[in-house]
Amino acid sequence: MNLLLLHPEQALSEGLWRLSDRQARHVCGVLKLSVGDTLRTGILNGGTGKAKIESIKNNGVEVFFNPDSEAADPLPLNLLLALPRPKMLKRILIDATSLGIKRIVLINSWKVDKSYWQTPNLKAEVLQEKMLLGLEQARDTHMPELTLAPRFKPFVEDALDGWAGDSRRLIAHPGDFPAMPSDLTDAVTLAIGPEGGWTDYEVEMLRDKGFACHSFGERILRVETALPALVGRVIRLP
Amino acid sequence: MNLLLLHPEQALSEGLWRLSDRQARHVCGVLKLSVGDTLRTGILNGGTGKAKIESIKNNGVEVFFNPDSEAADPLPLNLLLALPRPKMLKRILIDATSLGIKRIVLINSWKVDKSYWQTPNLKAEVLQEKMLLGLEQARDTHMPELTLAPRFKPFVEDALDGWAGDSRRLIAHPGDFPAMPSDLTDAVTLAIGPEGGWTDYEVEMLRDKGFACHSFGERILRVETALPALVGRVIRLP
Repeated sequence: MNLLLLHPEQALSEGLWRLSDRQARHVCGVLKLSVGDTLRTGILNGGTGKAKIESIKNNGVEVFFNPDSEAADPLPLNLLLALPRPKMLKRILIDATSLGIKRIVLINSWKVDKSYWQTPNLKAEVLQEKMLLGLEQARDTHMPELTLAPRFKPFVEDALDGWAGDSRRLIAHPGDFPAMPSDLTDAVTLAIGPEGGWTDYEVEMLRDKGFACHSFGERILRVETALPALVGRVIRLP
Repeated sequence: MNLLLLHPEQALSEGLWRLSDRQARHVCGVLKLSVGDTLRTGILNGGTGKAKIESIKNNGVEVFFNPDSEAADPLPLNLLLALPRPKMLKRILIDATSLGIKRIVLINSWKVDKSYWQTPNLKAEVLQEKMLLGLEQARDTHMPELTLAPRFKPFVEDALDGWAGDSRRLIAHPGDFPAMPSDLTDAVTLAIGPEGGWTDYEVEMLRDKGFACHSFGERILRVETALPALVGRVIRLP
C-alpha cells in the first residue's frame, strides 16, 4: 500500500476521515504510525496529498486530510483482454490498474474455457477490490472502468467502435507481422488474446474493426507477462 | 509447457530420448498424446524441432527426436536485479527467462531484507528449475547464466564492467530524469532496484559505472510488473 485511498463515504466532517479496518491495521500494524504522523493519501477518483493521523483508538483510526495534488494522468490505453483463467485474473487486474490503464474490457474468445465466466472472481466487489490494490500500489486514485463482454461477436460488432473511439487499434499476434510499435503518441486500444491466441475468425473480426496485427517476437509469453511488456512498449512516457 | 525440453543426459541412443517423470506425466496426462503423435521439442542449450512418441510403457515414455531448427535469438539485454523477496523470486525468474534474457545478476541492495539471501529458493537447483519453466514457456532452449552478488559494492566495483561489457547501461529510477528510451538497437544492461528503490549511494555507484537514470512514469510498480514493462519497452523486436 503506497497510498492510503479513502472512499468518499469515509468522510466524517470537514477534513476528517475514518479509516477502514484494513487500512487501520495497515497503518498501525505494518507502517507502525502514531498520532501526528503523516502518510500519502488520496480520495477515490479524486486528489492526493498527505494525511495526518488525528487519533488511534480501539474503535478506529481517524486522519485529517485535504488533497492538494492531482493523481497521475490516466494512460491513454484501452485494454481488450480475453478473459484470463481465474487464478491469474486478480493479478492481471492489479497489474493493469497499477500500470495506469483506465478502460478494460474482459471479452470471451473461443479458447477461453467457459467455466472461467462462472468464477466468483468476476463478482463486481472482487474486481473492484483488486483494482483498488492496483491503485494503492501505483499511488493512483481513479478506478478503471471495467466491462464484461461474455459474447465476442455482439461486443465486437456493436460496441467496440464506440468503446475504442479513434484510438490506434493493435493486436499482439504471433506470425509474420510488423513488429509491435513503441512509444506511441496516439491513444491505443490493445487487444491481447487468451493462452493459445485468438482464432483466425476472431482476428478477422478485429481486423474488420481496424485492428492491425503486430508481432512481439518469437517467444510465447504468459498473458500476465505479455500485458506489462506490451503496455510498457507502446506507451509514450510523460 | 510449450516445448518439451530434453537434457542431453536423457539421450538413449541415436535420436532416441527418454522423458523425465514430469515430462511423461505432462505428455500423457495433460496433452494426452499417444504413440506416433508429435510435439515441439528442444535440447537444452541446443536446437529445436518435432519429436515423435515412440513408446509409452509403465516404465516410461520414449521419443524420437533430431533437432532441425535453431532456438530464438537471445535477447541482447543483461539484467542487474536487486534480489526480490523469495515469494516473487521464482515468478520473476520464469518471466525474465521467458522474455529471452540470458544474463542475470541478482544483487544485494540496502533495502533488500538480509533474510532474502537465506531462502532455499536461492539453491542452484531451484533457480535452474524455474528458468527451465521459463524456457519451456517461451519455446527457448538456452539456459540463462545467473550470478548471485550478495555484496553490492565489490560486484559493482570489480565485476560489473566486465559483465556488462559495452552495453548501454540504464537504471529505471523515479524522479526528474529523461523518459526510459524504447526500441533500442544497442545491447542493454538494465538495473532494477528493490521495492523502495536503490539508495542514493547505490545510484551514485552505478552512475560512476556509466549507468544513466531514466524515469518510467509517475506510478510505482511492483518489481514483477516493472520487469516485463521495462524489457518490452527497451528491446528492439526482430
